[in-house]
Amino acid sequence: MGFLEFTVEAEDPSSKGRVGKLKCAHGEIETPVFMPVGTQGAVKTLDPDEVSALGFNIVLANTYHLYLRPGHETVRSLGGLHGFMAWNGALLTDSGGFQIFSMRDLVKISEEGVRFSSHLDGSKHTLTPELSVKIQEALGADIIMAFDEPVPPDCSDYYAREASERSTRWNERSRRAMTRSDRAMFGITQGGFSPDLRRRSAGQVVDIGFDGYAIGGLSVGESKEIMAEMIEATEPVLPKDKPRYLMGVGTPDDLVRCVARGVDMFDCVMPTRNARNGYLFTSEGRVAIRNAKYAKDPGPIDPECGCSTCSRFSRAYLRHLFMAGEILALRLNTIHNLSFYKHRMDQIRDAIREGSLGEWAGRLERE
Amino acid sequence: MGFLEFTVEAEDPSSKGRVGKLKCAHGEIETPVFMPVGTQGAVKTLDPDEVSALGFNIVLANTYHLYLRPGHETVRSLGGLHGFMAWNGALLTDSGGFQIFSMRDLVKISEEGVRFSSHLDGSKHTLTPELSVKIQEALGADIIMAFDEPVPPDCSDYYAREASERSTRWNERSRRAMTRSDRAMFGITQGGFSPDLRRRSAGQVVDIGFDGYAIGGLSVGESKEIMAEMIEATEPVLPKDKPRYLMGVGTPDDLVRCVARGVDMFDCVMPTRNARNGYLFTSEGRVAIRNAKYAKDPGPIDPECGCSTCSRFSRAYLRHLFMAGEILALRLNTIHNLSFYKHRMDQIRDAIREGSLGEWAGRLERE
Repeated sequence: MGFLEFTVEAEDPSSKGRVGKLKCAHGEIETPVFMPVGTQGAVKTLDPDEVSALGFNIVLANTYHLYLRPGHETVRSLGGLHGFMAWNGALLTDSGGFQIFSMRDLVKISEEGVRFSSHLDGSKHTLTPELSVKIQEALGADIIMAFDEPVPPDCSDYYAREASERSTRWNERSRRAMTRSDRAMFGITQGGFSPDLRRRSAGQVVDIGFDGYAIGGLSVGESKEIMAEMIEATEPVLPKDKPRYLMGVGTPDDLVRCVARGVDMFDCVMPTRNARNGYLFTSEGRVAIRNAKYAKDPGPIDPECGCSTCSRFSRAYLRHLFMAGEILALRLNTIHNLSFYKHRMDQIRDAIREGSLGEWAGRLERE
Repeated sequence: MGFLEFTVEAEDPSSKGRVGKLKCAHGEIETPVFMPVGTQGAVKTLDPDEVSALGFNIVLANTYHLYLRPGHETVRSLGGLHGFMAWNGALLTDSGGFQIFSMRDLVKISEEGVRFSSHLDGSKHTLTPELSVKIQEALGADIIMAFDEPVPPDCSDYYAREASERSTRWNERSRRAMTRSDRAMFGITQGGFSPDLRRRSAGQVVDIGFDGYAIGGLSVGESKEIMAEMIEATEPVLPKDKPRYLMGVGTPDDLVRCVARGVDMFDCVMPTRNARNGYLFTSEGRVAIRNAKYAKDPGPIDPECGCSTCSRFSRAYLRHLFMAGEILALRLNTIHNLSFYKHRMDQIRDAIREGSLGEWAGRLERE
């Protein structure tokens, strides 16, 4: 349908992991890929050149936030989101559903769409599949996501099924609403926490036909085992020649385990949000930089890391900046955590090419 | 006395402005110079490479803040402030007096020094000239400031005189406390708001003999006219072959007016603090970026500016980031404002070489 080419270049005989290339309007992306989150048109604390320098060439932005502020028509008039935020890489926008449904008690769902109040000024809005696609086209995302309804882990089987069926119809309406042939659209499979429902949803969404497929509604509090079970139910239904995107996942080890289950794309606020809270990912586990034991520590965050933070600054300095409330701390931490995630994806692709990803993932499962 | 060379390279026939070179332990600095403020060991929001890239090669840091957190001995053990903050340019540290006296009602002044409570944990400390120098030597500043007592604009003539005399004695003790021959020390002249007292203080401090001389206690709320009068009283007493540093000044136009009165060095939080509050300096006046009229403005902050913010981002985007509470806004604004100040100093040096600074300053006086 839309503008997207996906080629699988290598498969891991020991798992379902594959290395691929994803070509879209703004460049070519190696998969498996992790996409940093730029909710409001900026990867928090970083400027776009820093994101590039870290080796990322695709970023996620949030439709809900940009629709409310500054508004998609404003962004369109300023060169689309690419021009607005001075980002020459690829952009994927979510459909806005996830943010709205995370305020579930405050929204009204109907077949048409979802009515909600802005968290900024209380104004009333109705987001429909058609409006979501219109906003995303105005933003100019390379990859547009269909509008869907994720369900919370504690919802009834009855409701999960109803929401899953509605998501299928919303996927179909999103598909029909798409007008730009220079952009791509991914469908989103749902199905709550039932393998049967997951299979059925995936089958329906694949029947509609998209440039790629997302597994939605996971990483909302369920256990690792249930997440794995849902991916395993969905994956065989998805066409092998299209990219698969697991939304909102996850920890560095989740990335290994989920690529081994056939996932190609990820996004998550974990590296950036943890950074701003002073939690740093390292080859030796997570470091809480505020810990007093780092007060005089001359070493880098991670001796195995070559990022621009680790190559210049000690744990002692980073702790000082963090304790002193210096904004620079948040950026230096973000650079390190994103660098760790980028390196993790490089390692995963290498493991696939070497045929050792299955072993790595298995080791993590047993831990 | 200490390690500092200062050469006057050009003088403006139309004013007291001069272009010079100041050589210290960490490089050579063109004067007149503006020094960005890095209170806690970081120019707020910027990493040291960004400060360099803006063209600055000297930064000010605050003794009071670094003494309390993380502590000067910690900084010394981590390579001094240069190593700690990964800054290869020059550093000037203030003596701590200004911060302490800005909490005047909470401190106890004696001949020995000043007793105060930490703003962090309420712990009691006594800062003396000897301790201030010891801290600054541990931090490793290229230019160390003598310990002094600035007075508020509303203090009595009697108190101003007493404080000024005490400052002279503290300057002398600071001078004697200096042990590092690879660093320089500046004396600080005081004298409140009396030209007589200013002249007398300057004479006494010059008699002690320093590598440079600061004019202290100004820019604390007095009028432009009074500030000018105090500089004019002090300047003729200062030796022409030593650098003169006006502490805590000022607006872009203050820089022009004060260089024309013979000042070589400045520091001020104005460009960085204004940036974080959304106020941007431009060739057409100050821009309040939160103003709704910029919501769809595709132009840069300042069409005449070539900084990395203006060359990439629109007013609309910068307003969006600021309104959305994105930390990136504060950094992009800081880069612009410091770039404006750097450019202003370049223009001032050019005007001195062309002999036109007096005319420029005169035009500003009449405005």
